Amino acid sequence: MSYEVELKFPVPDFRAFSQKLSDQAVLISPAQEEIDLYLAHPSRDFAKTDEALRLRRKGDANYVTYKGPKIDATSKTRREIELPLGPGAVSLASWTALLEAVGFRPAAEVRKSRRKATIPWQGREVEASLDEVDGVGTFVEFELQAEQSGVEAARNCIQSLAQSLGLTQGERRSYLELLLEGK
Amino acid sequence: MSYEVELKFPVPDFRAFSQKLSDQAVLISPAQEEIDLYLAHPSRDFAKTDEALRLRRKGDANYVTYKGPKIDATSKTRREIELPLGPGAVSLASWTALLEAVGFRPAAEVRKSRRKATIPWQGREVEASLDEVDGVGTFVEFELQAEQSGVEAARNCIQSLAQSLGLTQGERRSYLELLLEGK
Repeated sequence: MSYEVELKFPVPDFRAFSQKLSDQAVLISPAQEEIDLYLAHPSRDFAKTDEALRLRRKGDANYVTYKGPKIDATSKTRREIELPLGPGAVSLASWTALLEAVGFRPAAEVRKSRRKATIPWQGREVEASLDEVDGVGTFVEFELQAEQSGVEAARNCIQSLAQSLGLTQGERRSYLELLLEGK
Repeated sequence: MSYEVELKFPVPDFRAFSQKLSDQAVLISPAQEEIDLYLAHPSRDFAKTDEALRLRRKGDANYVTYKGPKIDATSKTRREIELPLGPGAVSLASWTALLEAVGFRPAAEVRKSRRKATIPWQGREVEASLDEVDGVGTFVEFELQAEQSGVEAARNCIQSLAQSLGLTQGERRSYLELLLEGK
């Protein structure tokens, strides 16, 4: 089983932060829009179980993602299963119809503009996502993949990178939670 | 919304029946094994609601299929949503894991050897499946696709074809139902 070890930080001055990365010769991708449809389970309260089922549209590509409960108190580490769906709007509509037929319901939509970067740190390649999230704010997410035995080391690596960039106050809540709490 | 209009008949003498079709210049494909994993819903009794959610492996290809309740008393007509999944055993295992994570449970497995044929009848092309189903028996399924307004006509067409082939006693129960009842 593979874990996504992820820590997220609010970035009040987004432009200055991006510039700081660029100054360190980190390449940042062009922005891509991601539209996430979160689904409510027919009989389980995902807010209480700390799970999520999500349909993501990224350009023409579609994905379904299951996120399990967070496995510790400080990071956003979860079990994650992400699978590609057929591309395009018709495929996404059919998947939505299938999931609705078995009782899932659209719960909320998160739209964001995301730029990706890979930051070398302590001999690892940390994936960074610079996110401008509609109705929520601006954030950076750091991510490493790890097996269960490597979760602690991956988290320490990310914490160290964040500190070096002047980020200290992590945000454990998801964009979905932040969006729903802000309403 | 598209409907699958389908009637199924037991075929006691499978070899003679196949020969009869061949004599009428109907081409029959080589046999292909299909393995269907039926899933139980986390909170809905699919046996009572007359629905099904199925993962199908056909050679290297994988599909997920939702089948809605039968819409009339004589045929097997249902709403059906079938979507392709990524190919191969790893993809199928990941899909099974994702569906289990949100509470679906493997309920039963139907294995069959299927040969396909297209039979011209009354100006339409009727899809026929000649099935040898492990632990159940030998059957032929006839199928036409129809919009809601064309369901009645499609059913009459299939009934007429079946009669011409000496088939009169339709079987409304699914292979899954027959398998579970036979145990």
